[in-house]
Amino acid sequence: MKHTEILTRYVANFVDELVESGVRDIVISPGSRSTPLAMLCSQHKDLQTWIQIDERSAAFFALGIARESNRAVAVVCTSGTAAANYFPAIIEAYYSRLPILVLTADRPHELRDNGAPQAIDQIKMYGNYVKWFHEMALPEASERMLSYARNQAFRAVHTAMQHNKGPVHVNLPFREPLLPDFHVENMWGKGQKKRWFESGTITVDASTIKRLISVLKNKQRTIIVSGPQDDARQAKAILKIAELFHLPVFADPLSKLRSHPDPKKLVIESYDAFLKSSSIREHLQIDLIIRFGAAPVSKAYGQFVEAQKDVEHIIVEPYEGYREPTDQTVHYLYSDATSLLEQLNGISTSFDFDPSWLEMMQDWNEKAKGILLERSFTENLTEGHAVLGIEEAAPFASILFVGNSMPIRDVDTFFMHTNKEIEILANRGANGIDGVVSSAFGAAANGKRVTLLIGDISLLHDVNGLLLSKETSLNVTIVLINNNGGGIFSFLPQASSETSQFEALFGTPSNIQFEQIASTYSLHYHRPDSFQSYIDCLKESYEQNGISLIEVQTNREENVSWHRKKWKDIETILTSK
Amino acid sequence: MKHTEILTRYVANFVDELVESGVRDIVISPGSRSTPLAMLCSQHKDLQTWIQIDERSAAFFALGIARESNRAVAVVCTSGTAAANYFPAIIEAYYSRLPILVLTADRPHELRDNGAPQAIDQIKMYGNYVKWFHEMALPEASERMLSYARNQAFRAVHTAMQHNKGPVHVNLPFREPLLPDFHVENMWGKGQKKRWFESGTITVDASTIKRLISVLKNKQRTIIVSGPQDDARQAKAILKIAELFHLPVFADPLSKLRSHPDPKKLVIESYDAFLKSSSIREHLQIDLIIRFGAAPVSKAYGQFVEAQKDVEHIIVEPYEGYREPTDQTVHYLYSDATSLLEQLNGISTSFDFDPSWLEMMQDWNEKAKGILLERSFTENLTEGHAVLGIEEAAPFASILFVGNSMPIRDVDTFFMHTNKEIEILANRGANGIDGVVSSAFGAAANGKRVTLLIGDISLLHDVNGLLLSKETSLNVTIVLINNNGGGIFSFLPQASSETSQFEALFGTPSNIQFEQIASTYSLHYHRPDSFQSYIDCLKESYEQNGISLIEVQTNREENVSWHRKKWKDIETILTSK
Repeated sequence: MKHTEILTRYVANFVDELVESGVRDIVISPGSRSTPLAMLCSQHKDLQTWIQIDERSAAFFALGIARESNRAVAVVCTSGTAAANYFPAIIEAYYSRLPILVLTADRPHELRDNGAPQAIDQIKMYGNYVKWFHEMALPEASERMLSYARNQAFRAVHTAMQHNKGPVHVNLPFREPLLPDFHVENMWGKGQKKRWFESGTITVDASTIKRLISVLKNKQRTIIVSGPQDDARQAKAILKIAELFHLPVFADPLSKLRSHPDPKKLVIESYDAFLKSSSIREHLQIDLIIRFGAAPVSKAYGQFVEAQKDVEHIIVEPYEGYREPTDQTVHYLYSDATSLLEQLNGISTSFDFDPSWLEMMQDWNEKAKGILLERSFTENLTEGHAVLGIEEAAPFASILFVGNSMPIRDVDTFFMHTNKEIEILANRGANGIDGVVSSAFGAAANGKRVTLLIGDISLLHDVNGLLLSKETSLNVTIVLINNNGGGIFSFLPQASSETSQFEALFGTPSNIQFEQIASTYSLHYHRPDSFQSYIDCLKESYEQNGISLIEVQTNREENVSWHRKKWKDIETILTSK
Repeated sequence: MKHTEILTRYVANFVDELVESGVRDIVISPGSRSTPLAMLCSQHKDLQTWIQIDERSAAFFALGIARESNRAVAVVCTSGTAAANYFPAIIEAYYSRLPILVLTADRPHELRDNGAPQAIDQIKMYGNYVKWFHEMALPEASERMLSYARNQAFRAVHTAMQHNKGPVHVNLPFREPLLPDFHVENMWGKGQKKRWFESGTITVDASTIKRLISVLKNKQRTIIVSGPQDDARQAKAILKIAELFHLPVFADPLSKLRSHPDPKKLVIESYDAFLKSSSIREHLQIDLIIRFGAAPVSKAYGQFVEAQKDVEHIIVEPYEGYREPTDQTVHYLYSDATSLLEQLNGISTSFDFDPSWLEMMQDWNEKAKGILLERSFTENLTEGHAVLGIEEAAPFASILFVGNSMPIRDVDTFFMHTNKEIEILANRGANGIDGVVSSAFGAAANGKRVTLLIGDISLLHDVNGLLLSKETSLNVTIVLINNNGGGIFSFLPQASSETSQFEALFGTPSNIQFEQIASTYSLHYHRPDSFQSYIDCLKESYEQNGISLIEVQTNREENVSWHRKKWKDIETILTSK
């Protein structure tokens, strides 16, 4: 068999097995060494191919697709520093538990570590940030080696998807010539025996349930905490467990519970706002925390937990992990939330929590929400208004993708429970401001409308994400909070440093005119100056196809005072009797 | 001693010792955890602070400064994926042997690997791509620990600078509060005993010189090859060795020899063009290659070496390394070129090479250059014209920074020997198209005028490099070769694939209007349509301060034909007698 036929069969079988294993999207960055992979992926009828010249943005775009779809998404790049550009998204995927398949083309062994151009050491180059690394053999087309190629593709996808999901890295060396031949007969290797893969969930036994029940007893002041969570099935079970016991649920904006039906009003969304008061944190003593998902976004919640000296604290993880930063005594319970719910239902306990605890939390929540949702139309547009407007105008069953730093905190504070089934997503694995545009665009890849709430620094950091605005199938409304720099630092002690150093090191104003950015990347552009015109712009954008950029200009100092007043008002209303 | 005083003394001593050890520039990306480092660096009177919000661009900017200045340059970022964005530039620095000090702020140990926000595992996160990694102790201010902080700073700088230079990584954990206090008395720790550091060069003994001389005997057809090289001292010695033996020097554009005085006309610049002819490659048999520096940019040169069956091949490295991708039998000679020159001079051999070999190479070089430099003004502007114009118009003692992919190949072909002392620089460690804008801007940081020759994909990839255009001290003329996509692929077999797939996967047209990019980042913009107007634009840009963008629009297909005609003409003139 000739080189080209061998190359074609080997790579085509690998690609076909990716598809058989569930991969539907592949994000390719152009390059030469990756030619066989790129061409065969783009030729496969069941793969959607996306092209992004910047590998950093490409990997975040893939991550956005994976986050929205719960499927493994592949990225393909050429050899050299191209592969290094994937690193930030790989780390985010690792901590966010998202299934990314990193497929890096490489030079063959005889062109490694000897000064050959564009050759770097790609073996295990992402260190411990991938769940699995495999260096593929050079293409061969014996029956054994075609089966090997399929087995590695199969294993790569399923390793990425199994238990805690995460990135995997497969390195593929190729010799020249690199062009595959699409005329090779049955190049995809169809007609082989199908592989299959099933994996169960973790279920604890009856004695563990007994132990849990015994802990629950007499813990009248119990809260269920639902942190960031990509698995909708878990989220649903968590709320059912809360219903079973009539307990309040502190629901993180990324818990999926702020838009899940909640007829019993168990979801408490304003805890971040009322826990910002140090006097409330100190006086509100609780007995038990049962937390699901990652640690919540809210810093105030973390401080509140630190202040709880006698609380019992149980963390439930579906498979494995240690995600509690306070270093208090914590119990870990590894179990799927759905199984847990079934077992607790099975017990049909007559177990009663004092309803006054839930009622008190509901009362606080209503009062805090009253203040948070109050819209004063005489004021300038604030970062809080930006969130309120989205909740009002965003279409049913759309996605709100939230940038890190201030936007996620504002969403935590101002985005209340809605029946609009708006799914809130964010990159909270490592909380970077990088790659956010691309991740949001990725979340739109399957056809859902996405609203992206993002700050100016974060937008500029991933401005290359906007190169995909030419993909006409993506519908994204970008709400840009432009405070000309790093707004979060105005909330931190750094703001007390000398003004010139503060602006240079933390404020970092870019003075970029975003209208010009919009024009460069062919985005619909709006700059509303009132809440009503903001709502109008949002509504207009949701009726258009393509990418809209709505610039909300705010002032960092005004923004801090506006927020602080809300927190003060909430503290006052909840503590004065 | 209070926390803030301890923090201040510890970090200030560390920073002060960086400066004592020779660091002059520090590139900071904003963040919270890095506050003590950022504030103390920006406070140090002998450090030039640069701010770049995108860590990827920041590290490439630092790399550009290091490449131009031969000094260690530090980068500072916060914890999390920020640090991962440095990865591409670290890999380039590793292979390019450039001294970059990566200073990453980190969370303290109790906030690691337990779900704390923005905390990732930063221990050895760059794998084998750094020469040294050190995790610093948490701040302490005992005499011992301040001396420890200084020693690590000292060692970091000198490890980066010693022998083959390269990146080092120091990870610095900090606890809150993070603000230093500039009122701490003698916070820099001045008045301590100074550290010093000297390191010698590698020198071989007399028996090795004898062995070398015995190899040289009867090797009439010998070439000296001078590959990419950042050390001007080595470059000078290489030309002197060639003079000693009256041998031709195949001088890579990055060898520093294309603008070094060459009264004996030993420098052969057009070898890439004439070696493109396979018939010349096969018929030109040589006896000996003595190569200094990295493997040359020229692919034709590599193919020529592959075709030499009986050649002796000596590679001279100043310290260590294996940089020969052909896998022929190669001899390695580890010696500083200056020492080698002295020893060869000392032998004062009467050793004679047949002058006809040098004369033949000189004759070929003149003929090939005649064709390459011929400017046909009836044609559209080509990528070759872009290089010719820069050579004509660029100011004395300026820098030409060259992008990868096509620009470096065009410079190899068209940039001939000049007395204008134009230093040519490029990122040829891993040959990435990433980070090129930032690297070129870095090369301008010390006040020299820089011309950057770059393609459209590469410019877009590092468009964030342009955020530093607000730094008024940088004077850069960007010559953008805009062929709306990846021009190099038109030269490769990929061009024979189906047109639609070719454009999507390899051509990748962005359709970006660069005039809008220029406007967004406040660049002077020109789009010349003839060679003369191109020269005028260049000259105008060299008289202005700030950043100019000169867009040269070319056509990928025309460009390929134009190049191929030149190569054909050269083959014809050299092979027809």
